[in-house]
Amino acid sequence: MKRIAVFTSGGDSPGMNACIRAVVRTGIYRGLDVYGIYRGYEGMIEGEIKRMYSYSVSNIVQRGGTILKSARSLEFRTPEGRKKAYENLKSHGIEGLVAIGGDGTFTGAKVFFEEYGIPTVGCPGTIDNDIYGTDYTIGFDTAVNTALEAIDKIRDTAAAHDRIFFIEVMGRDAGFIAVECGIGGGAEFVMVPETKTDLKHVVKSLKNLRKTKTSSILVVAEGDDLGNAEEIMQQVKAQIKDPNKEFKVTTLGHIQRGGNPTAFDRVLASRCGMAAVEGLLEGKTNCMAGVVNKEVVYTPFGDCIGMPKPLIPDHLKLIDILSI
Amino acid sequence: MKRIAVFTSGGDSPGMNACIRAVVRTGIYRGLDVYGIYRGYEGMIEGEIKRMYSYSVSNIVQRGGTILKSARSLEFRTPEGRKKAYENLKSHGIEGLVAIGGDGTFTGAKVFFEEYGIPTVGCPGTIDNDIYGTDYTIGFDTAVNTALEAIDKIRDTAAAHDRIFFIEVMGRDAGFIAVECGIGGGAEFVMVPETKTDLKHVVKSLKNLRKTKTSSILVVAEGDDLGNAEEIMQQVKAQIKDPNKEFKVTTLGHIQRGGNPTAFDRVLASRCGMAAVEGLLEGKTNCMAGVVNKEVVYTPFGDCIGMPKPLIPDHLKLIDILSI
Amino acid sequence: MKRIAVFTSGGDSPGMNACIRAVVRTGIYRGLDVYGIYRGYEGMIEGEIKRMYSYSVSNIVQRGGTILKSARSLEFRTPEGRKKAYENLKSHGIEGLVAIGGDGTFTGAKVFFEEYGIPTVGCPGTIDNDIYGTDYTIGFDTAVNTALEAIDKIRDTAAAHDRIFFIEVMGRDAGFIAVECGIGGGAEFVMVPETKTDLKHVVKSLKNLRKTKTSSILVVAEGDDLGNAEEIMQQVKAQIKDPNKEFKVTTLGHIQRGGNPTAFDRVLASRCGMAAVEGLLEGKTNCMAGVVNKEVVYTPFGDCIGMPKPLIPDHLKLIDILSI
Amino acid sequence: MKRIAVFTSGGDSPGMNACIRAVVRTGIYRGLDVYGIYRGYEGMIEGEIKRMYSYSVSNIVQRGGTILKSARSLEFRTPEGRKKAYENLKSHGIEGLVAIGGDGTFTGAKVFFEEYGIPTVGCPGTIDNDIYGTDYTIGFDTAVNTALEAIDKIRDTAAAHDRIFFIEVMGRDAGFIAVECGIGGGAEFVMVPETKTDLKHVVKSLKNLRKTKTSSILVVAEGDDLGNAEEIMQQVKAQIKDPNKEFKVTTLGHIQRGGNPTAFDRVLASRCGMAAVEGLLEGKTNCMAGVVNKEVVYTPFGDCIGMPKPLIPDHLKLIDILSI
Repeated sequence: MKRIAVFTSGGDSPGMNACIRAVVRTGIYRGLDVYGIYRGYEGMIEGEIKRMYSYSVSNIVQRGGTILKSARSLEFRTPEGRKKAYENLKSHGIEGLVAIGGDGTFTGAKVFFEEYGIPTVGCPGTIDNDIYGTDYTIGFDTAVNTALEAIDKIRDTAAAHDRIFFIEVMGRDAGFIAVECGIGGGAEFVMVPETKTDLKHVVKSLKNLRKTKTSSILVVAEGDDLGNAEEIMQQVKAQIKDPNKEFKVTTLGHIQRGGNPTAFDRVLASRCGMAAVEGLLEGKTNCMAGVVNKEVVYTPFGDCIGMPKPLIPDHLKLIDILSI
Repeated sequence: MKRIAVFTSGGDSPGMNACIRAVVRTGIYRGLDVYGIYRGYEGMIEGEIKRMYSYSVSNIVQRGGTILKSARSLEFRTPEGRKKAYENLKSHGIEGLVAIGGDGTFTGAKVFFEEYGIPTVGCPGTIDNDIYGTDYTIGFDTAVNTALEAIDKIRDTAAAHDRIFFIEVMGRDAGFIAVECGIGGGAEFVMVPETKTDLKHVVKSLKNLRKTKTSSILVVAEGDDLGNAEEIMQQVKAQIKDPNKEFKVTTLGHIQRGGNPTAFDRVLASRCGMAAVEGLLEGKTNCMAGVVNKEVVYTPFGDCIGMPKPLIPDHLKLIDILSI
Repeated sequence: MKRIAVFTSGGDSPGMNACIRAVVRTGIYRGLDVYGIYRGYEGMIEGEIKRMYSYSVSNIVQRGGTILKSARSLEFRTPEGRKKAYENLKSHGIEGLVAIGGDGTFTGAKVFFEEYGIPTVGCPGTIDNDIYGTDYTIGFDTAVNTALEAIDKIRDTAAAHDRIFFIEVMGRDAGFIAVECGIGGGAEFVMVPETKTDLKHVVKSLKNLRKTKTSSILVVAEGDDLGNAEEIMQQVKAQIKDPNKEFKVTTLGHIQRGGNPTAFDRVLASRCGMAAVEGLLEGKTNCMAGVVNKEVVYTPFGDCIGMPKPLIPDHLKLIDILSI
Repeated sequence: MKRIAVFTSGGDSPGMNACIRAVVRTGIYRGLDVYGIYRGYEGMIEGEIKRMYSYSVSNIVQRGGTILKSARSLEFRTPEGRKKAYENLKSHGIEGLVAIGGDGTFTGAKVFFEEYGIPTVGCPGTIDNDIYGTDYTIGFDTAVNTALEAIDKIRDTAAAHDRIFFIEVMGRDAGFIAVECGIGGGAEFVMVPETKTDLKHVVKSLKNLRKTKTSSILVVAEGDDLGNAEEIMQQVKAQIKDPNKEFKVTTLGHIQRGGNPTAFDRVLASRCGMAAVEGLLEGKTNCMAGVVNKEVVYTPFGDCIGMPKPLIPDHLKLIDILSI
């Protein structure tokens, strides 16, 4: 293998740039030519492919977003689109790929590899942490800390006014962000897609708060079974029926995707990026490089996408106990 | 004057604690007894009044929120409520008041002073900066920086995906926050209540962005004449009619009220708090202590509430020029 | 067991408050009376012991430092001191202890348990991460992020001026902080106590930087074998002999101990605190509750102090490769 | 005037990039060609001059450092050096200059203008705030907030351990940073070059702290008359002679120069940059564009360098009163 290319795809996450840097520099260190593909599969189809050098990735380890940009590609879902993509890669002499992204990215990479056989190793770049085969995904720690800082700020206001705040964080299918920032933020409740939310219990608890607790924070993952934060607040409010209680909703939204990555995410991203290139050189393909129990592990794309990744049971217990 | 009390009222703002600290310590330094009234006018009516010492305000200069809490009081709007408040103050021997808050707070203070004559000086505590008689209000600088950090994060994502983001910041009647964080965040447009928003111009400009500009940030004050950020986005989207453009909305919400105050807000708060106590001792009343052109200035409550406070014209011009 | 006490000892670390909160609330949740001992072993000797309630630990999960304070105690190293401590605990009816701190803390706890037999479980509270029996210690992640933010800021200046910066971080015996923030900060070199620093190699590399690299960051753990950052800088400068190169030193110092804990540290602290109490209730003693590979693990104090904890080899490799 | 150039010189400061952006875009908006000169006067001499476009300054408003880099130039102090610089500017057709920097920068600009007559307007870019003709300099607010965050972190540790901390901030000739972050950080003392430091008073006060105050923060500007923080600490320690008191020193150093600029600095930088270009077009030269009392003001370079800029007297008073 002499020439590889790297791209980012799907929603961006903090640390993607650190991962790109690791891929480029490890590649060069190992004697490879490294190319960058812009805007994910879309750029692969349109031929937006450029040579990258060591200096191309200077001073980006600390930046959010992705210098290679990201996009969704409907065309890549068609055989014609993938054919174009393959021809572009071939014409550039690309013999290996590093795909940074989440499950959509790996689904595409799997199909593409099975059709055209270009060796591909993935890196888990998504804030949601819902990828099997790695303890944490790149961007998750930053997103949690961003959400947590927001919760800390809101707690100032909640405490000053004796209010009940519903804070919606990202997580359509997974409650990882909600659980971590719920524990860290001292939330009274955390509502996640993985467990059935017991409205009655929430209402009863909010009615019976100890007298010294005058404000409450409830963290809601956007994909909770009872609805989004606004909807859940309305249900709770309707059942509590206390005109003296003030209910407020804040939806954190896209701030969770951006920002300078934390140390944890930069190190994880660097390690996955290096491992992806070394994996390619060792003949690995159709798999993702992740970190499990502090060790690099390669997991088939099929498992990354298909296997469930449960929340840590201790963490759910913590929320119940620590909010008393 | 031997005994004064301090309270916070209305929406909390970062720096209120620094202001309380300055009132308490300046009072003690000048030989006064200082009391704290909890939960604003509500606590004045209910008699939640406690002696404060130098150590009562240790280690709070850096905290958001307000250790004296805040609340809205419907009862204080009634003559009966105010009578109760007066009797509580009298029974504690309170001879002077420092009221930290915004226009609602000062409206109440004015009425109360005119009825009962307890000398009262205010400090401008609100994130909105819409108080005449001070260049800046306590909490404004922090709120702007909080909003700006959020915009910086969103720009990471906007740039990675070539998107158009509408970001709603606080400001029901005033565009100060929107303008400052619009300039600071490099926004393409800022929409504020003070000026009529020209939808056609916005649409035309977004259609004709220079080719090298692939993402855009539009900052919307919640009180803009065209509606909130979601409503404006829908109008813009309907007129642009370009299926390739992605439009996103983020409403920053209550995170703008909390957080550790910036240096600017801590210094302003400290100065206003000290000036309020010194004003009381010099016989000032029914007025607010603010800072104009680096000097402490006392402005009658009537003017603080009633006089318009325009945006800085240069600042509006900056946004037009710098977004090219 | 009906009554337990918790204390913090040694250098403070961010997350100690979150850990105290978890101990107090888990204890109460399990039906125990919980006491706080102020200023570590010193307060144990002097009898500074107070009952704690659920509200005693409200609103502290996000705060740096320790509400129970910390101190060094020479007296506790004497049999007389420990006897006094024991009598105080006995007179309060304390039947179990949770000790939050580092190796000094655990050394004391081990001796004390062996002499007096009060069941004791520890929680790893130190920024240095040099405790065997847990993947990470409470405060480490925050310290790394604090150091990293400082490095990011210094890089701005280094890049603007084409300078070579030596940044000293904490770590008298361990290079964990240096390695993590070296990778995360894109450092050219990291010098740690665990490995012999090759001055010649550093000098040669700095002389032969690729032309596009005009500034460099070298991260030095305070306990490096070649000396502290200032000393190493002088050695390098003397050998490079290039009057056009500017060398600068920044010693980050105590800022690394403070600040609001990160999400990671709050969750880890909460989990260890809960596990310590549950461990006591299950009859565990003379051991520390840590988290290894995402699971709670109890390790004898003797091992925590005595067993070496190596750096992750991959991480050292990353620095070499990624700085090309 | 058809063609102007902008450069940054002297120590970098956060907001310089926002200022460059404002110069470039205002220039283009007004129909000018705009060039960037790299590495200040050094690049002027060596001909490092490049055309800048609107997109050249995209996505930099939020970045610390300076994309045009900075350097000290000994050669520019010689007539030969300035002649080379002039010829380079002439050969590029540069008819106007915007010089961003501090007093060294303006001293050079003044001499150069007087010799060669190229119209030049300055922008105040320095963290020290020691330039007459503007209320604040670009970078000062960010530096103060950076120092303040560090003080907040150190206070966590100081409070946990009952220690006395001496914190050294930048300010060789001016105490602005020390005073602002002293007030904001709740320091017990602030020592600045502008006033004689009374060692006896400091020692006496530290001996007689009220019993509830167990930790103290002393902020020292690097140019204090008694020496740097370490030297002052040694003097204080020698006179207090209390083995139970722990004294610690932290020198914040270069972290104060870097980091993302605050909103205040971005707005100030934008406004000064726009004003500099508009000043040039109106025929102004040999002067600096600053902001005084919210209005743009042009001040002759001679005054900017030569006139004293006193501290705000109220601010010094605040520190005495608020630390009781």
